[in-house]
Amino acid sequence: MDGVVSFTKKIVAICSGGLDSTVMYFYLKHLGAEVVPINFSYGARHNFRERERAKLMIPELILLDIDLLFLNSSLLKNSTIDVPHGHYEEENMKSTVVPFRNGILLSYAIAYAESIGFDAVALGSHAGDHAIYPDCRPSFTSAMNEAAKEGTYNKINVISPFNYMSKGDIVKVGHQLGIDEIMGTTWTCYEGHEVHCGLCGACTERKEAFQIAGVEDRTKYEN
Amino acid sequence: MDGVVSFTKKIVAICSGGLDSTVMYFYLKHLGAEVVPINFSYGARHNFRERERAKLMIPELILLDIDLLFLNSSLLKNSTIDVPHGHYEEENMKSTVVPFRNGILLSYAIAYAESIGFDAVALGSHAGDHAIYPDCRPSFTSAMNEAAKEGTYNKINVISPFNYMSKGDIVKVGHQLGIDEIMGTTWTCYEGHEVHCGLCGACTERKEAFQIAGVEDRTKYEN
Repeated sequence: MDGVVSFTKKIVAICSGGLDSTVMYFYLKHLGAEVVPINFSYGARHNFRERERAKLMIPELILLDIDLLFLNSSLLKNSTIDVPHGHYEEENMKSTVVPFRNGILLSYAIAYAESIGFDAVALGSHAGDHAIYPDCRPSFTSAMNEAAKEGTYNKINVISPFNYMSKGDIVKVGHQLGIDEIMGTTWTCYEGHEVHCGLCGACTERKEAFQIAGVEDRTKYEN
Repeated sequence: MDGVVSFTKKIVAICSGGLDSTVMYFYLKHLGAEVVPINFSYGARHNFRERERAKLMIPELILLDIDLLFLNSSLLKNSTIDVPHGHYEEENMKSTVVPFRNGILLSYAIAYAESIGFDAVALGSHAGDHAIYPDCRPSFTSAMNEAAKEGTYNKINVISPFNYMSKGDIVKVGHQLGIDEIMGTTWTCYEGHEVHCGLCGACTERKEAFQIAGVEDRTKYEN
């Protein structure tokens, strides 16, 4: 834990309802920051499941709906597309990329932070996302940090405190924070079923993260 | 003219219907670029006038509506606010700032460029905007350029070819391109009247730009 928020106390945190951003939210609160959680729905089929879970865990969540359907993105365009199985490093995972998604979400969050007088925005990206999602890499978040500082009166910072950690490391942080039950409630799966499918790339990485961390996985899986 | 697009041939250009971005569009076309023009409406009262004009001048315009009403912005929130008169350098002009607006618009444009296989995005900000709008400064667009390159597979560039020019310089460029009539059709005014009010900050700077450039101003003004 790198104490990255020691200089930033009022943070708009992007909270998807997934494992990483949920642990980040409780981590930032634990560090004493004032955190406003913001949740986006942008037309992916798993968004409603994520939001459902996010509202359970973080009732004060601010909800924003944006429309990204003008993008040529297979994940958004085609609700019948097969969600790929396997690991994020693999080529077939590219169908889960929504172009520059984090650029758009961060820009909204930065605008909102500026408009309520906050001084930072937090994104829960981590090392496991880097291979397939360019807008999760430290080089991207660091450039967005620069853009946010230069493009606002509040000189807003963009922080991504888990960006050099693995998903397993994040589970360990959550365990130290005493939120095993909450971690089991978070939503990761790209399918929109009642419970996690257990087979898609996101589920595969989720299962492994708990195993690697040696923390009990309370998630309900179909498979 | 600095030849900034010599290495970028497929450009998504943000075209508001205003003077600067309209001249930029015809300038990029003149340089031989393939340009896809994109127009945003985000809830400001002058957006519909801008778009009306933009569609007249650039029929192939792609239209995107986004909702920024969650922002605490006096220009967007309060349709009865008095639009300030005078120059952009003045303190009262701050009420016309929409927080991080160009961050949001650029992010959408970058995502769209990535999704259609283009390699650049263009923004028509210029030196006269720098005092009051932090998200028009070169330090901002240069950081967004970095974020776009790092956050996309296409390594998209953000260019702002007029960022070191004054509005008067832009009028000169338009005149050289032979588009005086089109420049007179562009929309600048913050009011949503039938014709330009001639008094608000935007109108004041527009009038002066034509005067400084020594180019006939074909705009119809109320005052």
